[in-house]
Amino acid sequence: MLERIQEPKDLKALSIEDMEPLAEEIRRFLIEKLSVTGGHLSSNLGIVELTLALHYYFNSPDDKLIFDVGHQSYVHKILTGRKDQFDSLRKYHGMCGFIKRSESEHDVWEAGHSSTSLSAAMGMAMARDFQGRTNQVVALIGDGALTGGMAFEALNHIGHEQKKLMVILNDNEMSIAPNVGAMHNYLMKIRAGRHYKKAKEEIEALLKRIPAVGETLAKTAERFKDGMKYFLIPGALFEELGFTYFGPVDGHNISQLLDTFRQADKVNGPVFIHVLTRKGKGYTHAEADSHAWHGASAYKIESGQMIKAVGAPMYTEVFGNMLIELAAHDERIVAITPAMPGGSGLMKFAERYPKRMVDVGIAEQHAATVCAALAQEGMKPVFAVYSTFLQRAYDQVVHDICRPKLNVTFAIDRAGFVGPDGETHQGVYDIAFLRNLPNMVLMMPKDENELRRMMVTAQQYDAGPIAYRYPRVNGTGVKPEEIIEPIPIGTWETVREGERIAVLAVGPMVQLAEEAADLLRPLGISLHIVNARFIKPLDEEMLLRLAKGRYQILTLEEGARLGGFGSAVQEFYADHGLTLSIKCMGVPDYFVEHGSIKEQRQEVGLTAENVAAQVQQMLPRSKRQRA
Amino acid sequence: MLERIQEPKDLKALSIEDMEPLAEEIRRFLIEKLSVTGGHLSSNLGIVELTLALHYYFNSPDDKLIFDVGHQSYVHKILTGRKDQFDSLRKYHGMCGFIKRSESEHDVWEAGHSSTSLSAAMGMAMARDFQGRTNQVVALIGDGALTGGMAFEALNHIGHEQKKLMVILNDNEMSIAPNVGAMHNYLMKIRAGRHYKKAKEEIEALLKRIPAVGETLAKTAERFKDGMKYFLIPGALFEELGFTYFGPVDGHNISQLLDTFRQADKVNGPVFIHVLTRKGKGYTHAEADSHAWHGASAYKIESGQMIKAVGAPMYTEVFGNMLIELAAHDERIVAITPAMPGGSGLMKFAERYPKRMVDVGIAEQHAATVCAALAQEGMKPVFAVYSTFLQRAYDQVVHDICRPKLNVTFAIDRAGFVGPDGETHQGVYDIAFLRNLPNMVLMMPKDENELRRMMVTAQQYDAGPIAYRYPRVNGTGVKPEEIIEPIPIGTWETVREGERIAVLAVGPMVQLAEEAADLLRPLGISLHIVNARFIKPLDEEMLLRLAKGRYQILTLEEGARLGGFGSAVQEFYADHGLTLSIKCMGVPDYFVEHGSIKEQRQEVGLTAENVAAQVQQMLPRSKRQRA
Repeated sequence: MLERIQEPKDLKALSIEDMEPLAEEIRRFLIEKLSVTGGHLSSNLGIVELTLALHYYFNSPDDKLIFDVGHQSYVHKILTGRKDQFDSLRKYHGMCGFIKRSESEHDVWEAGHSSTSLSAAMGMAMARDFQGRTNQVVALIGDGALTGGMAFEALNHIGHEQKKLMVILNDNEMSIAPNVGAMHNYLMKIRAGRHYKKAKEEIEALLKRIPAVGETLAKTAERFKDGMKYFLIPGALFEELGFTYFGPVDGHNISQLLDTFRQADKVNGPVFIHVLTRKGKGYTHAEADSHAWHGASAYKIESGQMIKAVGAPMYTEVFGNMLIELAAHDERIVAITPAMPGGSGLMKFAERYPKRMVDVGIAEQHAATVCAALAQEGMKPVFAVYSTFLQRAYDQVVHDICRPKLNVTFAIDRAGFVGPDGETHQGVYDIAFLRNLPNMVLMMPKDENELRRMMVTAQQYDAGPIAYRYPRVNGTGVKPEEIIEPIPIGTWETVREGERIAVLAVGPMVQLAEEAADLLRPLGISLHIVNARFIKPLDEEMLLRLAKGRYQILTLEEGARLGGFGSAVQEFYADHGLTLSIKCMGVPDYFVEHGSIKEQRQEVGLTAENVAAQVQQMLPRSKRQRA
Repeated sequence: MLERIQEPKDLKALSIEDMEPLAEEIRRFLIEKLSVTGGHLSSNLGIVELTLALHYYFNSPDDKLIFDVGHQSYVHKILTGRKDQFDSLRKYHGMCGFIKRSESEHDVWEAGHSSTSLSAAMGMAMARDFQGRTNQVVALIGDGALTGGMAFEALNHIGHEQKKLMVILNDNEMSIAPNVGAMHNYLMKIRAGRHYKKAKEEIEALLKRIPAVGETLAKTAERFKDGMKYFLIPGALFEELGFTYFGPVDGHNISQLLDTFRQADKVNGPVFIHVLTRKGKGYTHAEADSHAWHGASAYKIESGQMIKAVGAPMYTEVFGNMLIELAAHDERIVAITPAMPGGSGLMKFAERYPKRMVDVGIAEQHAATVCAALAQEGMKPVFAVYSTFLQRAYDQVVHDICRPKLNVTFAIDRAGFVGPDGETHQGVYDIAFLRNLPNMVLMMPKDENELRRMMVTAQQYDAGPIAYRYPRVNGTGVKPEEIIEPIPIGTWETVREGERIAVLAVGPMVQLAEEAADLLRPLGISLHIVNARFIKPLDEEMLLRLAKGRYQILTLEEGARLGGFGSAVQEFYADHGLTLSIKCMGVPDYFVEHGSIKEQRQEVGLTAENVAAQVQQMLPRSKRQRA
């Protein structure tokens, strides 16, 4: 059946009865394809029927189907003519793992970060009304994404303006990590409520207990509310925000979904449809552990065994293990994560120190300011966050942490290229947006030992915010040091002594520089390599020494060139009236798409070969020719 | 009575009966003092009794009193020994207009941006529990600030963790602008509800209409809910988020406040106290128009007439007027403001085009993404936002606007120093945090005409995001141009032809450069001045021409030096292998405190005199001596 569906209108030619076997086909397709490519399996298995129902009832692309965090769009991609591209899913120049407008007219809202869909829906509904169109706008959002502050800002605005649009809550009790937050508890109560719908007697008994109305009303109504409200008005909270609530609806029952859409579509204002789904549905392994199967690597279908790449431990893991050690000797340490305990390598820490690991849900802003307050009260909070998501907390970093100079440690994971998640997730802006802030100390390690040393450095530092950023790659496999010494703030390390050209390399770029040096040595070129482990403050002494030694400078960073580390070096020399020749390599001024990290580095020229080529260009012609 | 109160414990020596006359005294004090200095009058008049009750019941600083947006802390400052400093309120080296930890041990949380207090309270409660203390933590937040997404993130987390703490909602139906949003509507219903508390019969009649429980339950319960719930459980929404709700309480009745605190303090978990206050209370003029009296300039007490500085129109006003003109000819234009219609100069626009002016409340993230969606659908949204608040929407700017290259116009007000609001509000980071983003065009005008030209430029530009930033100062008073031409993207303007040293000046710094040139001319130094009206992209042609002309470069910007416009110029020359001497003047790497803009510029050396001095230093000694 799947073969016949090239676009949504082919779907509409089918009967409702055809949907169930079609869903089955789609599940088999996904399980098979993703077993090779990897990808977001469990969330997509969870919304097969929901996506079918959406495309069956609505008329995309006139009606706007907005996926919050586009990684739940695989079924949508299958139904909109991209079935044949699944072999290239998330690969370089292949199909994007998220919604991508350039791929299809049915892709109307791109998002890799969560919680943007309701604002997008509001904007599209506003534009529709300005332009006198009549299409429906539908936002599909998960229960995890709903806790993001901007989703609430949107609910608040939509409820007030009473725009006609549809919010569909895909409630699977799980964002990436098991969901936290009062909203989650509330949704759970609704879920539970539906099982008791028939308990009429109990309801009536409770009603009889409503007391006389008076001063103490609020308190005496307490029991009434707890016992009653979830039977009577399961979505009261959303209704109170101005939405008409429908639900909860079984997200795997297509008829029920279609009925609900039909009813909801008649409402001339915002509606909130609460759909219950099961992550990983239809694939036993994913159903059993939907967390592990959120972003799956390739796997064996039968056994559900994931094929993990072998290699040195990831920096993430090194961070997680070391934090356990630090916490053992420093009771002030608390780890804060915005819904990424697994991704941030904190699962073991959470086991060891359950009370000192605080998952605030998808709430980066709140997380940062909680860290500020903890620091102010003498704790040593470690904010574990991906570079790309730290963008969400930028104002809090400026206003609540850097300005009052509080001892917050930032553990910035996935700094640099992130591989298959692509342009929405690239961690290449944090150098530029952090180093311009007063009081910030910013580091990046060249290997696992140095990460550990930076963590000790941060733990001992008490003069304000300090950050270490590390990449989404395996470490270099260096032998773990027994004794881990802190690093004096603002000091770099000379890795190789050389002549004429000094490479100032940040983080994994140190290794790149060494590889380039190895390529150049046979040509008689001896590169001087510095591990610029502090991005801020700079090692001013070393910079002056290099200037005195008449070196030309080549900076190397896996971050945006504009305003990046290289610019910091230029600023320093300009401020000192030194007019050196400085060449800066980094990420150019465009968004780099999905692929492997290796391919992304290649695309922007961050390879040993290209570094070697640049070095040769910097040399006087005579020197080059000799080479 | 006020004379005897030097710290909160002096207050506790008084009887409750003393509070009312004391409140009266405080009001008179505030009205008198602020009539000279200006300041946030109406919000502080609104919480006199509330602040008295807080300090009467709680033990600051052991108990933590957190003010969301510290500008409502004047009464707190009076009660904590700073009465005598009110003459220097918001003045250079004087008392800060916000909470300031260096001023008093009773100032426990600094904030100039709204909606941070709940996260702060959560962090402090967590630290308290980690450290085994027993103090109470109290956050005082306004109904406007409650709509900020991070406040919701905090509610969600607090409600889940069930930490003992107290949220006091200061509900005055008004943030800075009249409040918007579903939350506001909800609070209004609660307010209304309390007048009907005695309508027992009606309630009982409604109860009888509760239908049999069944499939259609949710819908038939509709009427029940609308008629009933606000009588029975006024704070249901907050209760559903895990808080124990108290209220609404009369915020001008100290006994009632104290009773409520006592009750609420017994709850071993989070409580939410809903307090109703009247902004401007006790000063007729401020009560009548609390909006105008939010941030008051000096005024005559009797007449309530504010003493406005005379001068050329502010850039804000120029923006507002010009947007009306543009909107007349371009139906795609919509103005979006996050609760700043007045501050952003949009009141007249709103009168003229009520439907095309969208106030989303304090919700910068949502505002930005709404703009993205509007742009995607062919509208021409203008996001009017202060530089400092744009920080709140940074991820949305990166992820939702720059990445997909959408035609959003940013009207960035209060760019550069902001004067008396001081370090929390300085608009000096936007150059650095915007110019590192791909696809962004960033401009700043040298005068009112140029702002108008930039607005036309932005209106005609359709290749992605474009921003114009303008300062919080009067314009230069230039004669308005009749015909307003757009400016070719990435082109600068030579303002004066000169020799040896070229000043590349951004925005109001052009005028500064001209003043410096006037100082230097008698010394025989002829400065070359360029109006660098595009911060991104740079005028590469002109930069190359200057290099050819063997100019030394001096850049001038009212923005953070690190990563700023000067760095962009350095990057350009480095990329072209040109080793010019480049001197960059701007805001150094620390947070500049409150004072007048003139004083702030002086502090960091952004004066004509200092520019002239720097120029002289750049000249060869011989030349200088001749001068």
